[in-house]
Amino acid sequence: MILILKTGATDDQIDHVIERVEALGLQAHLSRGTYRTILGIIGDEDKISEDSLRAIPGVAQVIPVLPPYKLASLDAHPQRSVVDISGVKIGGGHLGMIAGPCSVEEPERMDRIAEATRAAGANLFRGGAYKPRTSPYAFQGLGVEGLKILRDAGQKHGMPVVTEVTDPRNVEIVSEYADMLQVGARNMQNFVLLTEVGKSSRPVLLKRGMSATIQDLLMSAEYILSQGNSNVVLCERGVKGFDSCTRNLFDVAAVPVLAGLTHLPVIVDPSHATGRPDLIPACALAGLAAGADGVHIEVHDQPEVAKSDGPQALLPEQYADVAERMRKMAELLGKTISPPNPEAAA
Amino acid sequence: MILILKTGATDDQIDHVIERVEALGLQAHLSRGTYRTILGIIGDEDKISEDSLRAIPGVAQVIPVLPPYKLASLDAHPQRSVVDISGVKIGGGHLGMIAGPCSVEEPERMDRIAEATRAAGANLFRGGAYKPRTSPYAFQGLGVEGLKILRDAGQKHGMPVVTEVTDPRNVEIVSEYADMLQVGARNMQNFVLLTEVGKSSRPVLLKRGMSATIQDLLMSAEYILSQGNSNVVLCERGVKGFDSCTRNLFDVAAVPVLAGLTHLPVIVDPSHATGRPDLIPACALAGLAAGADGVHIEVHDQPEVAKSDGPQALLPEQYADVAERMRKMAELLGKTISPPNPEAAA
Amino acid sequence: MILILKTGATDDQIDHVIERVEALGLQAHLSRGTYRTILGIIGDEDKISEDSLRAIPGVAQVIPVLPPYKLASLDAHPQRSVVDISGVKIGGGHLGMIAGPCSVEEPERMDRIAEATRAAGANLFRGGAYKPRTSPYAFQGLGVEGLKILRDAGQKHGMPVVTEVTDPRNVEIVSEYADMLQVGARNMQNFVLLTEVGKSSRPVLLKRGMSATIQDLLMSAEYILSQGNSNVVLCERGVKGFDSCTRNLFDVAAVPVLAGLTHLPVIVDPSHATGRPDLIPACALAGLAAGADGVHIEVHDQPEVAKSDGPQALLPEQYADVAERMRKMAELLGKTISPPNPEAAA
Amino acid sequence: MILILKTGATDDQIDHVIERVEALGLQAHLSRGTYRTILGIIGDEDKISEDSLRAIPGVAQVIPVLPPYKLASLDAHPQRSVVDISGVKIGGGHLGMIAGPCSVEEPERMDRIAEATRAAGANLFRGGAYKPRTSPYAFQGLGVEGLKILRDAGQKHGMPVVTEVTDPRNVEIVSEYADMLQVGARNMQNFVLLTEVGKSSRPVLLKRGMSATIQDLLMSAEYILSQGNSNVVLCERGVKGFDSCTRNLFDVAAVPVLAGLTHLPVIVDPSHATGRPDLIPACALAGLAAGADGVHIEVHDQPEVAKSDGPQALLPEQYADVAERMRKMAELLGKTISPPNPEAAA
Repeated sequence: MILILKTGATDDQIDHVIERVEALGLQAHLSRGTYRTILGIIGDEDKISEDSLRAIPGVAQVIPVLPPYKLASLDAHPQRSVVDISGVKIGGGHLGMIAGPCSVEEPERMDRIAEATRAAGANLFRGGAYKPRTSPYAFQGLGVEGLKILRDAGQKHGMPVVTEVTDPRNVEIVSEYADMLQVGARNMQNFVLLTEVGKSSRPVLLKRGMSATIQDLLMSAEYILSQGNSNVVLCERGVKGFDSCTRNLFDVAAVPVLAGLTHLPVIVDPSHATGRPDLIPACALAGLAAGADGVHIEVHDQPEVAKSDGPQALLPEQYADVAERMRKMAELLGKTISPPNPEAAA
Repeated sequence: MILILKTGATDDQIDHVIERVEALGLQAHLSRGTYRTILGIIGDEDKISEDSLRAIPGVAQVIPVLPPYKLASLDAHPQRSVVDISGVKIGGGHLGMIAGPCSVEEPERMDRIAEATRAAGANLFRGGAYKPRTSPYAFQGLGVEGLKILRDAGQKHGMPVVTEVTDPRNVEIVSEYADMLQVGARNMQNFVLLTEVGKSSRPVLLKRGMSATIQDLLMSAEYILSQGNSNVVLCERGVKGFDSCTRNLFDVAAVPVLAGLTHLPVIVDPSHATGRPDLIPACALAGLAAGADGVHIEVHDQPEVAKSDGPQALLPEQYADVAERMRKMAELLGKTISPPNPEAAA
Repeated sequence: MILILKTGATDDQIDHVIERVEALGLQAHLSRGTYRTILGIIGDEDKISEDSLRAIPGVAQVIPVLPPYKLASLDAHPQRSVVDISGVKIGGGHLGMIAGPCSVEEPERMDRIAEATRAAGANLFRGGAYKPRTSPYAFQGLGVEGLKILRDAGQKHGMPVVTEVTDPRNVEIVSEYADMLQVGARNMQNFVLLTEVGKSSRPVLLKRGMSATIQDLLMSAEYILSQGNSNVVLCERGVKGFDSCTRNLFDVAAVPVLAGLTHLPVIVDPSHATGRPDLIPACALAGLAAGADGVHIEVHDQPEVAKSDGPQALLPEQYADVAERMRKMAELLGKTISPPNPEAAA
Repeated sequence: MILILKTGATDDQIDHVIERVEALGLQAHLSRGTYRTILGIIGDEDKISEDSLRAIPGVAQVIPVLPPYKLASLDAHPQRSVVDISGVKIGGGHLGMIAGPCSVEEPERMDRIAEATRAAGANLFRGGAYKPRTSPYAFQGLGVEGLKILRDAGQKHGMPVVTEVTDPRNVEIVSEYADMLQVGARNMQNFVLLTEVGKSSRPVLLKRGMSATIQDLLMSAEYILSQGNSNVVLCERGVKGFDSCTRNLFDVAAVPVLAGLTHLPVIVDPSHATGRPDLIPACALAGLAAGADGVHIEVHDQPEVAKSDGPQALLPEQYADVAERMRKMAELLGKTISPPNPEAAA
């Protein structure tokens, strides 16, 4: 770490800082400039908390030189991770094509949507059985019944399934039915939940919070990794913006930024990022062009009766169209969309 | 609700919308303008989901006329709520003066800080036993041991205590020790947790999420209220901003905005809003001047050894100074700071 | 326009609103709902100011049904505009490939960079002679001397040139040397400057302001169009974000959003959007995939001695690499990059 | 300046950086840590551009130790400035109470509003004769005629006047009529205009841009100061936010942040910050409590016929009420509101 002292820091303050650093078994290397004094801390950065240093009188700024995420860091793990979701690969040139309705609904509908998305090229099927809704009066999901419907539709059409978990007490039951656990944007810093999914053996789809920095996202991934679960896929799904013409602001640059910092695969979710079906194709293609390892799109065959998020869903025929364009883009970029392996599904 | 149809919506589309509305037992009142057709929906707005209407082809915009929060709304409950925390009142002219360290630390220190903040005029004591930390490697709190230390310090100095709960499985145990449960900013949309604290009989301090709109905050309060717990105090603690010279952006206007929409008391937290001790006094006074029902400030007697958030803590003597200025401001504004009642503490 | 009245608006207030509307020769169509009264205003929306209506007691909300930009609107001009910059086309399937250093520098360097970017596939050459710098002590550009150097380099290599104008008093002189006038992000709402470039016959590259909504951008374009200059190209170059790991937040969804609202071509500027050379290729490709009509990239052969913005410039060989990838992407998307016509340059 | 080199920077890269630094007559002080190498640059920071250093291969971060604004800095000028506007003082304990309509309108109305605001306690009168409107079709101001009306109303009621200048060509004529020149938020980085008002002898009211950082604002003030005009008052008027329930997000913490960095007075504008008359009193008082040197409020006697911004104007009687509350707050804070000196007006 590097400490920049305040203009006018006294010798007593400087001595006090050095004392504190040395008491921790670290060395401080002093450098006096014309206006400022700098201290380079030499030794194991983990031994010392950035906050404690910042709170010492006379310290103006503390600059860490190592990222606070160790397991998620590309430095620590220079080979890109490939996450295997019951046979479907994401990362390392393999694209995850996740599609399905926002909420799990009745079995016949789920079957129809699974069939259509599979035919269009999707390799992972999604649907929410536990829905984090902003209103306590809105549909909250079908629960365990929904998990079963989802799994059945996925199995019938040979697609592993992805579903959200919102309650640490439900991680076990959801893991029984789902091939991949989703942690939603609103729970990205629900550290209790992250710790629980970190103990699961299921791969995790971790969505970026609406005001989470890239470092925040990687620290949340670190929670999961530090519990022993190394199968994490990150998802950019739009951050809070100031223009109400889209639901969120799609931060496509997050894809190459993350690729420079972490070995974990990164996918994009243009459905939540924009909230507008007419913008999904352009943003899905933009995500792939930026290097994303997959695309998550919500699909519903009758949006006006959808239990949630109908207005942002693509119709199956619209999904088929954008999936075909994504396939061509993948080819140009030298990426593969592996067909799901029916036998491998949960 | 009001539906604005798209320019060029066809008669078939209009008929289809009306059909859907009438099928729900509601009436649609049609108004054709030069460019646009409008439908006023007459009847019980709760029967129909905004999303479903928005997903109907031909619909451009859906404008609700009633707020989606019912119990939190000032319309529904025109008298301002006064929340009583084991004898200390917040709201209706009573100011809550919450002070204490970020994390609960060793008993002697807690005792010293409680004594000093009480002497300075604080009437509620705070400290975190379960800490939501962005890093899995950082201090996570003392747990139940911390709850005991906090309660003891509060009782000794006659102050009810406030502490954060982060896990739905811990609501019961935390409620045993604490007089008020805090739901932190990162958990503001952890609906599972909101539901659990809604079932508790303890008053709740609900902090605004970093990218939560005012309506989001009120919807989260609604979750708690809808479970039967009507003792909710809202807290503005800064939203995500673009200037790194403060930790967050203190949205002081949220105080009068909320006062116009809800009967629930609203306090401010200048410690988290700014992250800088030098800015806390100005922002605390600004919050009161804007109409806040209380102020939450972090205080530590030795910030450089604090287990968390040391750099933003006030020293006890600094707190005494700002508390004195708050007392004078309260007098000008005609507000009361009730002394805690030692007998009433948990 | 649609007026939604406040809950509890009195009959007198309603009558007063109707009076005001009718006094303007418009009709008001009244619709009383269970909770709210709505007024549909029928007639020419331009006759009445939204602000005046909003200021009438009892009015809660005013919802315009037509966009306030008329000339820029796709409704008014359903055929997509193609802007011709001295022979180089942008829009309607033609991609503008703008490249060059941030500031115009010495002639030999400009010659070298023009040669290299032209060879790589650029068809428009850029460089700033009047630089809007945040510091009064920073290099402010070479002025008229710079305009000459830029034009000479462009002409020698057969590329029309683009350069920024910052002062309404300089529009004439800049128009003498440049083929296209750039209005920078910081001047996007400098309405005096917009009016002057609107009187010029040169095409205009209008960059989006850092906190400008899509509607703000289109209203600024409208200023130029309303003065008679219909050759406007819009440019998304990043908006203000909360994460300092990129200079700005690249709003790639602005490309399809704008394509749905306006006939004007839209290009992207990944150099300013990200401020990081390592992110430029991914974001340039993402912009094209999202439907952009061109890409603006800063190129310098020796960034460490650049007069401005060196850290975000690509080296000529890096530009050649990304240009080749953009060429392949263009092919996939069915877009053309027209070679510049040397004879047509200014 | 402090340079932090990249992990893995080679010895050649380090040597090259040192060479470049020494070529500028500066010294580089090398410090090798476990992971990173740091270079402290000793000597005159102004000699070297941050950008050039950042563009050198191997450099990860450049940290300036001095603020880039010299004249605006509190370090350079430890005594707080008091700006005198034709006899009315702002700063150093004196509050500027600026009131008046958004646009200058007909003489009788201006007379009435000036009389009422003066009676209520305002000491500076405002009104715009050149209006920066987002729409080219909206009222653009009365121009010179408006300047005359404003000056006459001000003189009649003994108040110096403040008005916006938007065109560098108009600085001279506006300076003839106005006592103080306003540079609006949209022109905060119109460096051509800043340079012109810097050459004027009139005090300047510089409003913060909607996405300007505190440093951006101070750099814009530096433009004016560096031209020889040292009479600059800064104004916080809300930044871009994500919640549409207010027009902007009132950044009240900017007041104490600025007070810690600059000697220039700082006022607040709750009218533009919130865009809602009902929030103006709370935010005006919050601004004063945070330490502001004045408050700018828009007042109109008939908002529904106002030429601009009617919906956010206070009625004269509402202004009288908030002015009275501000007077009491000023007393508590030990601040003075000097009555204007009729003789001293322009």
